[in-house]
Amino acid sequence: MSSSPVRRLNIDNINPHVRAAKYAVRGELAVKSEEFRAALIGGGAGLPFDEVISANIGNPQQLDQKPLTFFRQVLSLLENPVLLEHKDVLLNQLDYKSDVIERAEWLLSKVGSVGAYSASNGVPAIRQSIADFLERRDGFPANQADIYLSAGASSGVNTLLHVICADEKSGILVPIPQYPLYTASLSLLNAHCVPYLLDEAKNWGTDVATIKAAHQKAKSDGIDTRAIVIINPGNPTGASLTEEDIRAVLEFSREEKLAVLADEVYQTNVFVGEFISFKRVLRELQQQNPDGKYDGVELASLHSVSKGMVGECGHRGGYFELVNFDPEVQAEIYKFVSIMLCAPVIGQCLVELMVNPPKKGQPSHELYQKEYSAIFEGLRERATALHKAFEQMEGVECATPQGSMYLFPTIKLPPKAAEAAAKEGRTPDEFYCMRLLEATGVCLVPGSGFGQKDGSLHFRTTFLAPGTEWVGSIVKFHSDFMEQYR
Amino acid sequence: MSSSPVRRLNIDNINPHVRAAKYAVRGELAVKSEEFRAALIGGGAGLPFDEVISANIGNPQQLDQKPLTFFRQVLSLLENPVLLEHKDVLLNQLDYKSDVIERAEWLLSKVGSVGAYSASNGVPAIRQSIADFLERRDGFPANQADIYLSAGASSGVNTLLHVICADEKSGILVPIPQYPLYTASLSLLNAHCVPYLLDEAKNWGTDVATIKAAHQKAKSDGIDTRAIVIINPGNPTGASLTEEDIRAVLEFSREEKLAVLADEVYQTNVFVGEFISFKRVLRELQQQNPDGKYDGVELASLHSVSKGMVGECGHRGGYFELVNFDPEVQAEIYKFVSIMLCAPVIGQCLVELMVNPPKKGQPSHELYQKEYSAIFEGLRERATALHKAFEQMEGVECATPQGSMYLFPTIKLPPKAAEAAAKEGRTPDEFYCMRLLEATGVCLVPGSGFGQKDGSLHFRTTFLAPGTEWVGSIVKFHSDFMEQYR
Repeated sequence: MSSSPVRRLNIDNINPHVRAAKYAVRGELAVKSEEFRAALIGGGAGLPFDEVISANIGNPQQLDQKPLTFFRQVLSLLENPVLLEHKDVLLNQLDYKSDVIERAEWLLSKVGSVGAYSASNGVPAIRQSIADFLERRDGFPANQADIYLSAGASSGVNTLLHVICADEKSGILVPIPQYPLYTASLSLLNAHCVPYLLDEAKNWGTDVATIKAAHQKAKSDGIDTRAIVIINPGNPTGASLTEEDIRAVLEFSREEKLAVLADEVYQTNVFVGEFISFKRVLRELQQQNPDGKYDGVELASLHSVSKGMVGECGHRGGYFELVNFDPEVQAEIYKFVSIMLCAPVIGQCLVELMVNPPKKGQPSHELYQKEYSAIFEGLRERATALHKAFEQMEGVECATPQGSMYLFPTIKLPPKAAEAAAKEGRTPDEFYCMRLLEATGVCLVPGSGFGQKDGSLHFRTTFLAPGTEWVGSIVKFHSDFMEQYR
Repeated sequence: MSSSPVRRLNIDNINPHVRAAKYAVRGELAVKSEEFRAALIGGGAGLPFDEVISANIGNPQQLDQKPLTFFRQVLSLLENPVLLEHKDVLLNQLDYKSDVIERAEWLLSKVGSVGAYSASNGVPAIRQSIADFLERRDGFPANQADIYLSAGASSGVNTLLHVICADEKSGILVPIPQYPLYTASLSLLNAHCVPYLLDEAKNWGTDVATIKAAHQKAKSDGIDTRAIVIINPGNPTGASLTEEDIRAVLEFSREEKLAVLADEVYQTNVFVGEFISFKRVLRELQQQNPDGKYDGVELASLHSVSKGMVGECGHRGGYFELVNFDPEVQAEIYKFVSIMLCAPVIGQCLVELMVNPPKKGQPSHELYQKEYSAIFEGLRERATALHKAFEQMEGVECATPQGSMYLFPTIKLPPKAAEAAAKEGRTPDEFYCMRLLEATGVCLVPGSGFGQKDGSLHFRTTFLAPGTEWVGSIVKFHSDFMEQYR
């Protein structure tokens, strides 16, 4: 009876920049893995595995990482402040310590209700807590007025790129491989991603000569490059930058007049060496150069509750700090965030807990420390086990785990595999990851989702999933795959 | 020693569309009111008032609206599931009912941890719960796959406008007065706001002839209008549309091939008449027209936990439902939301509680109902009291409160006031609201922040603030102001 409906919106007339955006972390493979998961719940799907392992995304608590007790006890009181009328029950029967109660009362005194909007840039007292943390971490003062709470770091990146990119000539230097939030956001903004390769041979460090060349090429293409993104520790690479690398990037940024966006969300996920913040190095350079030549180097540094030992990504909490920014530009950033009203207030409270955890001597400290260390050690152990497995695999090379939550091995696949992939209209790494998912239920992200040097192939896996069975299933799949396409 | 720093980014080279965006709800007046609040906390500010009343923003829990007990009890268990190991304590000592515990256990079984990312479009079971609610509300089935959880309705609007607007020719019909999220988002996207006036004489209803004229004018200006925004119940107007108005808008949208964005976040804040959803009327039209001529009318309907008797705006929870959308367009919407990963999971759970509150006969029902009704009645009483005060004020006219959380009276100010305003570079309504804030601590939003018919002046006030003293202070200020500028 009814003809096919005539709609206003179709794939050919909606925003072409949305259409152009790619976001592989939650792309085709992730969608297929969710279909498998649903099929397994449904029962007899005839799949050759019993479980889907989502190693495609850094989602710690989906993979059985337990939340930190202190944090969640405080949050439960913020959600239901009536519980604070029963302190004896909390203390004597429910294992809440006095510092949990004190923190909840303090936060409530500053926040009012977690159900109320806060100031657009976040609760002032929480911004002050972050400033205090930054001062302890870096040895330089921080100003709460330069701190903006955000719904995870992603929303902070979205804000900053929106303000920085002015038109279709604007460009941002982005590391390759990179977390695809950057390329996707730049696609949406119709601005240029100016890619610069990280150096796999030097543990995925930054190479200023490479960055310079990328910048020069963009300039000659008429691109107005405005900022450089650095992800440190690296995603997907896991690398930690040295102080020397950071200085070199800041020096380059000063010379070329680029703002620096330092994505530092993995700052506590460091196994080798130590985390060094861009802020500290920049302030040191400012101190060492009283002529003020570094005073115009703008730095935005992002952090989040999603990663680290906190792993509370579902709460969408994060912040960014602006250093050396023009006050008029900051006012526009403030207006931009105000349009979305404010970051989730319970997530803001979680940021406060992250930057101000129980101190030595406080009643919750011992358990907090124990839980925190166990998560840290667990991640290190799983990273090491996974790395060991990769070392056994033919044609796979993987740098020693250094940090973050990922390994990003190189894979060399036989030409026949590339041919079979081409027949499906896929890149070889996509083809490999798709076959792996179908055979084992393990979901990885192909290297092409992050960008990789021409001719090289990689995949990214988190090392969050517990157990070793899934690692074994990757090893077996890989050996079968190599046999099949040899 | 140091010269003025040379920065990369300044007000003249950042994104001009960010600069152009206006968002008066959190603009100059709001910022000034926060300065006054800080000054009052600081002590002797010499201000002529003791308290700042934020009547500029619908932020119920900032103004002492208590959260609903059932909701917050469940959330406390979601944040700290360890509490579920102490059911006897919860039940016997902390006043938690068995349905609170059951709901928390059910949600946890579906969500896993509230600290984990969910699917990009939201937890499937929560989407199903919303679909069930929509079916009960409208009498027509809803599909969970068409529902997208969002961080408040604002983030849903942001998503939809991003996908719908293709380029600088794209336009969206927006009611005037409107909630400035729409004009601000369209500024950011460099798309056109195509304004259509609501009819103040007909209780701020929609007038299709006016909409048609606005649409025609845009067409002749070369604007490619793609959708129409309806805010029902109205913000800032408080009006509830009749079924007749809704039908007329849908009929117009069909004729002109426009998608409909129905902002229905105030759907439970209705004092006069009843809320009628666009979805129900559209489905009825589809049913009554088996030739399928309405099957291509796309509708996106938005809702949120921020308003109504829930008032949990700080949690940033919301959703939108897509009706009659092209599946390929929906896939792009899915990708767009996936770039920001997912809506806050605790906010998603709150959406579930909102759409599926305790039912009659369940242990928490009585208290829930009592609290819910008390909030509803409180809002109605305060709206009435405020309305009564406005009726006494010279040159002020205000429609009977119908719904939402706002009154939007017309004010007629003496010419001298307009002259004084012009001297300050302000519109007369901005000038009035600024003087009011300075004299009384009451923060309103001038009508120009929402748009108003040329030559008319208004202000918007929420009726959330408790007590009547602040209302009295507005009356007194108004009388003094009129005297001064007569």
